[in-house]
Amino acid sequence: MSKSQNVPTMKDVAREAGVSLGTVSKVMNGITVGESYRKRVTDAAEKLGYQINSYARGLKTNKTYSVAVILPDLEHPFFARLADELTRALMKRDYRTILMLTSYDPEAEQECITMVRQNKADGIIALTYNPDLEIDPSIPFVTIDRHCNAEVPCVSSDNFGGGRMAAEKLLSLGCKKLLFMRIGSSVSSEVDKRAAGFESICRMRNAEFESVILDDSETEQPFYRFIDEHIAQGKFEFDGIFCNTDKLACLIWNKLIQSGVRVPEDVQIIGYDGTLCHITGKPLCSSIVQPIDRMAEAAVSILLKNNRSNLPVLMALPVHYTEGGTTKEVT
Amino acid sequence: MSKSQNVPTMKDVAREAGVSLGTVSKVMNGITVGESYRKRVTDAAEKLGYQINSYARGLKTNKTYSVAVILPDLEHPFFARLADELTRALMKRDYRTILMLTSYDPEAEQECITMVRQNKADGIIALTYNPDLEIDPSIPFVTIDRHCNAEVPCVSSDNFGGGRMAAEKLLSLGCKKLLFMRIGSSVSSEVDKRAAGFESICRMRNAEFESVILDDSETEQPFYRFIDEHIAQGKFEFDGIFCNTDKLACLIWNKLIQSGVRVPEDVQIIGYDGTLCHITGKPLCSSIVQPIDRMAEAAVSILLKNNRSNLPVLMALPVHYTEGGTTKEVT
Repeated sequence: MSKSQNVPTMKDVAREAGVSLGTVSKVMNGITVGESYRKRVTDAAEKLGYQINSYARGLKTNKTYSVAVILPDLEHPFFARLADELTRALMKRDYRTILMLTSYDPEAEQECITMVRQNKADGIIALTYNPDLEIDPSIPFVTIDRHCNAEVPCVSSDNFGGGRMAAEKLLSLGCKKLLFMRIGSSVSSEVDKRAAGFESICRMRNAEFESVILDDSETEQPFYRFIDEHIAQGKFEFDGIFCNTDKLACLIWNKLIQSGVRVPEDVQIIGYDGTLCHITGKPLCSSIVQPIDRMAEAAVSILLKNNRSNLPVLMALPVHYTEGGTTKEVT
Repeated sequence: MSKSQNVPTMKDVAREAGVSLGTVSKVMNGITVGESYRKRVTDAAEKLGYQINSYARGLKTNKTYSVAVILPDLEHPFFARLADELTRALMKRDYRTILMLTSYDPEAEQECITMVRQNKADGIIALTYNPDLEIDPSIPFVTIDRHCNAEVPCVSSDNFGGGRMAAEKLLSLGCKKLLFMRIGSSVSSEVDKRAAGFESICRMRNAEFESVILDDSETEQPFYRFIDEHIAQGKFEFDGIFCNTDKLACLIWNKLIQSGVRVPEDVQIIGYDGTLCHITGKPLCSSIVQPIDRMAEAAVSILLKNNRSNLPVLMALPVHYTEGGTTKEVT
């Protein structure tokens, strides 16, 4: 048998399905046709073992059906969950996920975006740490938690609402003197709103509070020092702490326990993210939970919109509170 | 300016670099040319803002410079680390990672492989749970931890050696009665060798031992029941346990503590994987550490070999032991 006999063409599919070549082409390129036609074409394609050459398709439709996902790494559980949910949201739509990791390096982030431009992906979803990122306006781009410019939609959890929720929760659980602690990047981002929301509730409720924000701190030492300086006779000066990540919340929890402070009896702690323990599957600590599945779904759906006018600048999705051992249980 | 004046072509690059069109084409397609020629071409391409149309390149060279990575999910820390390291190993070689997730579903795994065939990726690296996976011999394929057939290379940690190492370590730390516990899939795989290695050392050293292997168990309950049945007056019948994952080791550790058994004073436990706590960055428990970075590097390097004869059936990479609180410290 010659090679051409082995490999069925679009014409073979059209003949088998009893439809025009144009109809087959429409179906293969994802253009809407009547359901009965679509089924005849896909049945015939399956029967013959017809395979779309996605590269030829890419040239013709100028679409690649692939989206680049740019993240720092997959070691951080938030990034791993995000990559997981983004990949699922893209697969559901028959899009491929091109995964790129940057190790928080601003130059690597820029390089990734340049590479995507060369590889002609249909879009980019990125969580970056480069405040001066150059974005090609011709490629659809959605950020997670970052503000680039008014043309680039950002998808995030409701960071401001989450900060408010943490303050309200600690106050409702009887805390009298609140503390906000933040570790992380100095890049201005959505995440800044966690402190803003927390502080706004403290002010509104006339609650005593303090904020300790250590940007770009590589270690936990400054936080530990702060705790040491505010402990006298086994008593910590604050009785309610909101940390901007679950990781920090757990580190502070350990530090307090080691210092002889009881958690949650004397001090209650709420983190942010909703990270689950990979041993028990339970929350690592009491936390404001990010809806990572819905964030991924929203990011993909905004990215792939055909009509790219009137896109939101920010789509913030609702968070919820979970109890995880570092707060008093509500009875 | 017309569009054609805006978009530089390969001819423009050749003119700018003062080389032939063939030389430019070679450089763009990754074919070796003299370093000075390569530099002149890449400098000229950069100066003109020339961009390779990777889809046109894909049609011409029949290469896509992309590799599909098929994993169950990114929630399990081993899979997240593996995806992370594979992506880095591929990026280093200017290959794109197409990430696909299957949720352990054998049908989804087969569908992924079919999709890759249609999308013409240059290869597949997969960790699957479908014992009857149909693999297209025309697409380079490397598995992690799975044996498909003699044509498909498998990359893994030295599972047999790791099992041996765990037994030797427990015996050297004074354990007299050993236990192996396994939770997980019934798919025959590399992972089976952990028990085999462990048991072979127990036999060789005439050590008393028992193996509890519960395949496809969805919960930890059978393990907990086993422990309950073997505890009398706060004393567990075994004093050294090797678990086939760190997750199981941690669950067993918690269960023993709750049952009033001291770890590591009375019972020592070793897990497998080398999972780090994402709060502290330290090992979750004493463990046999898989070299995930080296496994990823090996998988990518085998996959992309031009000469695909004489490939190994199995490449097992060395593991090492790490102390993590569930064994007595060696003094």
